[in-house]
Amino acid sequence: MNKKNSIDVCLSPELLHLYSLENTIVVVADILRATSCMVTALASGAKSIIPVKSIEECLAMKQQGYLIAAERDGKKVEGFDLGNSPFSYMDKQLQGKTIALTTTNGTQAIKLSENAQEVLVGAFLNLETLCRYLETQTHDILLVCAAWKGKVNLEDTLFAGAVVEKLEKKFTIANDSALMAKMLYQQSKNNLLATIEQCSHVQRLKKLGIEKDIEFCLQHNLYQILPKMQNGWLVASDFSQLSA
Amino acid sequence: MNKKNSIDVCLSPELLHLYSLENTIVVVADILRATSCMVTALASGAKSIIPVKSIEECLAMKQQGYLIAAERDGKKVEGFDLGNSPFSYMDKQLQGKTIALTTTNGTQAIKLSENAQEVLVGAFLNLETLCRYLETQTHDILLVCAAWKGKVNLEDTLFAGAVVEKLEKKFTIANDSALMAKMLYQQSKNNLLATIEQCSHVQRLKKLGIEKDIEFCLQHNLYQILPKMQNGWLVASDFSQLSA
Repeated sequence: MNKKNSIDVCLSPELLHLYSLENTIVVVADILRATSCMVTALASGAKSIIPVKSIEECLAMKQQGYLIAAERDGKKVEGFDLGNSPFSYMDKQLQGKTIALTTTNGTQAIKLSENAQEVLVGAFLNLETLCRYLETQTHDILLVCAAWKGKVNLEDTLFAGAVVEKLEKKFTIANDSALMAKMLYQQSKNNLLATIEQCSHVQRLKKLGIEKDIEFCLQHNLYQILPKMQNGWLVASDFSQLSA
Repeated sequence: MNKKNSIDVCLSPELLHLYSLENTIVVVADILRATSCMVTALASGAKSIIPVKSIEECLAMKQQGYLIAAERDGKKVEGFDLGNSPFSYMDKQLQGKTIALTTTNGTQAIKLSENAQEVLVGAFLNLETLCRYLETQTHDILLVCAAWKGKVNLEDTLFAGAVVEKLEKKFTIANDSALMAKMLYQQSKNNLLATIEQCSHVQRLKKLGIEKDIEFCLQHNLYQILPKMQNGWLVASDFSQLSA
């Protein structure tokens, strides 16, 4: 019998240097709202997304013909085509387009993970599809929570816990953070919205009047799509591989 | 009515730079086993403990007449008087003595917190006494989990959660990590040993044959003592203040 591969959770990008990315599949999660938007955009027909670190770099990409999107501190940045609400990524005008996107936490976590074997993007919206793919893989898995400016947050941890719960039969739980994430998800999954409403980022978003974004981002398995980084671009991976 | 002070949890020393220590009371916790040993030693009559960063520095303090104690990777270091088992800190020969101590995680977390308004040491063993003191204070509180070589661990998080649960009426929960710690403690408190036996550090310690240390360190309120840093030395604080 083969030794099981492991599954682990990095609760903040500030802890990422403690983990080995070599031969590891990284799944980045920024539930409210960057990775939920990415999944929504690709599911709605956008061709690809380019995660970008800075506002300036992202703004400059407008000249190259890309749609540009930017969020800082929960708000859309002035002068950009799009912000960070998943509803704005359902627009038919995005079909076939490539979007350059920069956000406070999510795109930063993706950039930091670039040396991994593979970088995927996860959200509750594509949880089932993500897990169906991961359970066929023979590498270790690391869930990277985007967190909030380095501080651990509840919603990304709960998502990581959902993935650990689904995969723990096939993968060994590597560390306590994965165990803790699973425990928190199991405690909260029947009451996810009420649980998440206690948390700091949700309080922050509610002040901005975007409660319907929160409810949307907590929906499980709305899309059968798996965004994957390829040469710096996030694209929907080919699903014919997954239908076995 | 006065604005409430806040209570927060830093899940790893690697995240400590994200928190302000100014005007903040820091409580360091390394449940398995450094801070449990410190509480036990002072409760058993040791005069004070000097947390020391390196093995070499600690060894050199033998010449100055101190008892010296060192643990690395769960094991007592060769050539030292004491390791990191709480039972060895109950010895009557420690009465009135000062112990220089270095451990893998706990003493490092204390050294990193030195700029706080006040640095206390907590464990399940002195939980009630610690909380009785904290609830009378008018500063913000930050629980610093010693973690394991930077990676978040369950036992320190559960302890932090126990403190948050006891103080949440008098202090505002500042961030999701404090909320998560409280949720985990509430889920586990009636079954603490079984919960902690799942975690990585406990598996590590069990291999070293020190299960009775673990059971000992999970006992609540065995000692009415509060270790506090004063000029680099950890001493039992004066309890006449607490009896109001």
